[in-house]
Amino acid sequence: MLSNRKTVHVEWGDCDPAGIVYYPRFFEYFDACTNALFERAGFRKPQMLRTYGLLGIPMIDTRAQFYRPASFGETVEIETRIVQWGRSSFQVEHKLYKGEALAAECSEKRVWTVRDTQTQNGMRSQAIPEEVKARFA
Amino acid sequence: MLSNRKTVHVEWGDCDPAGIVYYPRFFEYFDACTNALFERAGFRKPQMLRTYGLLGIPMIDTRAQFYRPASFGETVEIETRIVQWGRSSFQVEHKLYKGEALAAECSEKRVWTVRDTQTQNGMRSQAIPEEVKARFA
Amino acid sequence: MLSNRKTVHVEWGDCDPAGIVYYPRFFEYFDACTNALFERAGFRKPQMLRTYGLLGIPMIDTRAQFYRPASFGETVEIETRIVQWGRSSFQVEHKLYKGEALAAECSEKRVWTVRDTQTQNGMRSQAIPEEVKARFA
Amino acid sequence: MLSNRKTVHVEWGDCDPAGIVYYPRFFEYFDACTNALFERAGFRKPQMLRTYGLLGIPMIDTRAQFYRPASFGETVEIETRIVQWGRSSFQVEHKLYKGEALAAECSEKRVWTVRDTQTQNGMRSQAIPEEVKARFA
Repeated sequence: MLSNRKTVHVEWGDCDPAGIVYYPRFFEYFDACTNALFERAGFRKPQMLRTYGLLGIPMIDTRAQFYRPASFGETVEIETRIVQWGRSSFQVEHKLYKGEALAAECSEKRVWTVRDTQTQNGMRSQAIPEEVKARFA
Repeated sequence: MLSNRKTVHVEWGDCDPAGIVYYPRFFEYFDACTNALFERAGFRKPQMLRTYGLLGIPMIDTRAQFYRPASFGETVEIETRIVQWGRSSFQVEHKLYKGEALAAECSEKRVWTVRDTQTQNGMRSQAIPEEVKARFA
Repeated sequence: MLSNRKTVHVEWGDCDPAGIVYYPRFFEYFDACTNALFERAGFRKPQMLRTYGLLGIPMIDTRAQFYRPASFGETVEIETRIVQWGRSSFQVEHKLYKGEALAAECSEKRVWTVRDTQTQNGMRSQAIPEEVKARFA
Repeated sequence: MLSNRKTVHVEWGDCDPAGIVYYPRFFEYFDACTNALFERAGFRKPQMLRTYGLLGIPMIDTRAQFYRPASFGETVEIETRIVQWGRSSFQVEHKLYKGEALAAECSEKRVWTVRDTQTQNGMRSQAIPEEVKARFA
């Protein structure tokens, strides 16, 4: 399975008055990592949206566990891979390392979502194209 | 059990190019709701930090499920309660409503964390004072 | 001239390791205040976009001066008004108060921007409808 | 004068429903660039805070002009330099490029701020050490 490793420099503005990463920022890191994994597979988001009439890949379920705090000035590494493909949803897994130590983990379930002006929300899920899945193999 | 209901106006800046709330912002909403619940119990965060030598109540495990998207201009209601107290950790639950519909749910496990210059991180967990727990009963 | 006063509760997550509002968050407050002023004038953003084919009112020039820091747990008041209308641009002014004290000021120049698939960016400025201006008088 | 050039990948989560960078995120970019310039001069923020009893370098005046929008998937370059040193304040200038084109500019006035438990805010400005200034020459 294709995986991607992304280096993140923890910024001052990512941290809260306790001096550690404000946890919603970790979800921003993870979201950027999922996009980076797609880029690595050859899918830059702007093109991917156009090619497939995609609205996005919104989150429907995510869980993160934080084992060690991170602070501004630190550099962390996040390893990302897709661990399961469904028909229209898929699961992503992130492992965040400080040096050798696993500092956080996150799992995501996202849905391949296209524009649909017929629906109330203007969107609906759709089967993920096989050619997309193939690129991650 | 004490609970709190907070009204959140979804801002333009909370939303992504799909026009819906960028999911890390929901975690910002939830974090503000946990703080609002403590305020309701009589603990404003600045005073709480001073009174107990508290560094904060960092997250160690959180899961959110998103059932319906929310968009700028919408108003949502978030109901928050503490569902379990441990010795130094506690669990929080949020339910986010759009009108009558449950649009998202989140569970949190947080740790009562004090400053400790002896430790490598400058922090350690501590037993939650009984008087704190009592205020939520 | 119509003005709007918005109360903002400074959240823990808005603050940096110095314990004060991380200044980009002030711009989030100000942006929400401009939107709130439009709402007060009768223009909720989702409807306004639909009615006028509007893409948004992007910023082209903004300056903020910060006289006093604000910290989590504090409540501030922001007074907002449009101080000048151009053909397709307009200027907004915000004054942020902590109690009686003026703690920050911001000026904004924004452009009324519509979708235009003919342009490279997919957008262009347009004359602001007179009926829009009239609502702020 | 020392300058620094930082590459920023515009993330999906940095963009608003108009599909372009939500302007407060540009200030996050600029803040990270000022910190990167200090790092380049040999001052990593955590060490700098410890060495000088520094609370931070809070913003007191900033102005940004946006000439061209940027969108997710794009990469921009930001060039940063300190253009003037005062006794306890200094001015920073950022130029943001999309390819060859200047897409945004920002000026900042920041204050060298130390902890002081005697003051109401717990902070006060202080003369910037000459050895700090010297590193940027």
